[in-house]
Amino acid sequence: MRIADVGEFPLIARLARIVASAQPDVVVGIGDDAAALDLGGDRLVLFTVDSQVEGSHFVFDRIPPHLLGRRLLAVNASDIAAMGGRPTHALVSLVLPPDLALAWVEELYAGLEEEAERFGVAVVGGNVARSPGGIVLDLALVGGVPRAHLLTRAGARPGDLVLVTGALGEAAAGLIVSGRADLPVPAAEGEALVARHLVPTPRVREGRLIAASGLATAMTDLSDGLGSDVGHLCDRSRVGVRIHAEKLPVPPAVARVAELAGEPPWDLALFHGEDFELVFTCPPDAARVLSERVSVETGTPVSVVGEVLPAPAGRWLVLPTGEEIPLAPRGFRHFSGPAP
Amino acid sequence: MRIADVGEFPLIARLARIVASAQPDVVVGIGDDAAALDLGGDRLVLFTVDSQVEGSHFVFDRIPPHLLGRRLLAVNASDIAAMGGRPTHALVSLVLPPDLALAWVEELYAGLEEEAERFGVAVVGGNVARSPGGIVLDLALVGGVPRAHLLTRAGARPGDLVLVTGALGEAAAGLIVSGRADLPVPAAEGEALVARHLVPTPRVREGRLIAASGLATAMTDLSDGLGSDVGHLCDRSRVGVRIHAEKLPVPPAVARVAELAGEPPWDLALFHGEDFELVFTCPPDAARVLSERVSVETGTPVSVVGEVLPAPAGRWLVLPTGEEIPLAPRGFRHFSGPAP
Repeated sequence: MRIADVGEFPLIARLARIVASAQPDVVVGIGDDAAALDLGGDRLVLFTVDSQVEGSHFVFDRIPPHLLGRRLLAVNASDIAAMGGRPTHALVSLVLPPDLALAWVEELYAGLEEEAERFGVAVVGGNVARSPGGIVLDLALVGGVPRAHLLTRAGARPGDLVLVTGALGEAAAGLIVSGRADLPVPAAEGEALVARHLVPTPRVREGRLIAASGLATAMTDLSDGLGSDVGHLCDRSRVGVRIHAEKLPVPPAVARVAELAGEPPWDLALFHGEDFELVFTCPPDAARVLSERVSVETGTPVSVVGEVLPAPAGRWLVLPTGEEIPLAPRGFRHFSGPAP
Repeated sequence: MRIADVGEFPLIARLARIVASAQPDVVVGIGDDAAALDLGGDRLVLFTVDSQVEGSHFVFDRIPPHLLGRRLLAVNASDIAAMGGRPTHALVSLVLPPDLALAWVEELYAGLEEEAERFGVAVVGGNVARSPGGIVLDLALVGGVPRAHLLTRAGARPGDLVLVTGALGEAAAGLIVSGRADLPVPAAEGEALVARHLVPTPRVREGRLIAASGLATAMTDLSDGLGSDVGHLCDRSRVGVRIHAEKLPVPPAVARVAELAGEPPWDLALFHGEDFELVFTCPPDAARVLSERVSVETGTPVSVVGEVLPAPAGRWLVLPTGEEIPLAPRGFRHFSGPAP
């Protein structure tokens, strides 16, 4: 059997069983946005790794190296944010073809450092190796979170509301615009969407506020799309969910691109991924104060998009017509999804 | 300019300048075997990453996945050992072609877990991505070291002796044997050398003993070969060195392979790399007690192979003939070295 026949998440589940071990200092292991380790300080240490692979995550001549460097840091910082933490230290593994221009690598690092400085991250080392094929970039990121603030994917309870930060569908719309010069999208609008597609904004301040409030019950970030990622949260929390398409924070520009591309706007918001917003849950009576705190202190809006159900009630998407359909993941899948 | 024109170490130096930042919690940053972070606990946190790239570090059908998994953990554990630390937590980034056999990946993980358990390391997460080309494996490893035991590449002083653990040249001899079926090497001897080439033994216990003794002044591990790696130690310590070819711990089996291959045995010991032994320095009056402590407690021999000189005295190799030649690195170089 090939790994393409198994698929990304079942593969991870199989590998997780092989390395399953209970070590007392592992507070959160495989299966969340980052590992959380108790190394004896007053904070838990968060630890995550993510890669950018030429031909899978990016196309060489479609993203400037400066933006790719920023993106490499940003997608990892998002995983730390999703635990309520602050990223602090990064290591970079570069696997590069020997004929790559030195200037390209230096631009990559300039972007990486720019984004690192934005979040107070120190790049403390790494590794360089020769690639006989394309470029593979890996970034390992360490962060910290006060013990009491750690927020995982587990903890959502039936009756909780489901909230998301920011806007959904911009990365998907940007991907569509970048591939379809024929679409009559205003230049400035298109450029803004493409920028969101190329470099996400990790919601570090937002995640820390949400976690520090003590009001939220679970959180994760949106890398694969809400339709898929809220499922991971449901898996770990052992709950069901109902998401309302009409409540999804889809900006007008995204709706216009969706219309031009002949797709429902909620499709871009739910199933295309890469928005790197945060989705979290909290009791209904905490939703307003928590939303206001985040939006006042960071400028990032927060939207209620659904509610947590008991596990047996299942996972549902309420369409604008009122019809309820099963919420099944359709986000990008490594090994079975389409190439970018 | 291409990165192949710059070379591995000048490239790293250029990139290090771009991300140079002084953060008070970074005790050791770029330029040593691992980063050392002060995250507030009673131990410093060590943090390192290393990759195994198909076609650069390994050839697919020449290493069983089980051994490759062990190797992936081992080479990283060696970096933690070289700081005097203990590896504790690992993240794995897998970049895999979709047609790879599931059984291959599961065997890789079984080997990884076997080696992880040997050193008390918990695999706490990772990432899976699709490769449009070959296999790229990255492992990020966290470890710990008591503050007072941290041992870096800096600290060697003129007059110190240079010592190495274990034996040198076995990995190089194993590589030669695995590529030359015509060499008349006894089967058992050849197999043992090939095994050393495929999976090194990280000297974790030895490194901790050396560091905890308080007697050693600097340490690094031998990934590129003593001729290159002792140079890194000299760079950071701002010293010179004299290495005696006759004192290098070259096992008889290595000497025989070297003779059959028409190379001087000290060449295999100095310039081929991948032995993953430790090289360290200490004052002359501490060498005997330190060597005995390590060999008694771990069974690993320790050999004095040279002495530290003032920087202006340079870096020298004393040949068995008594002739002194400049000690210049000739270990494997990414971007300019030969493929395996």
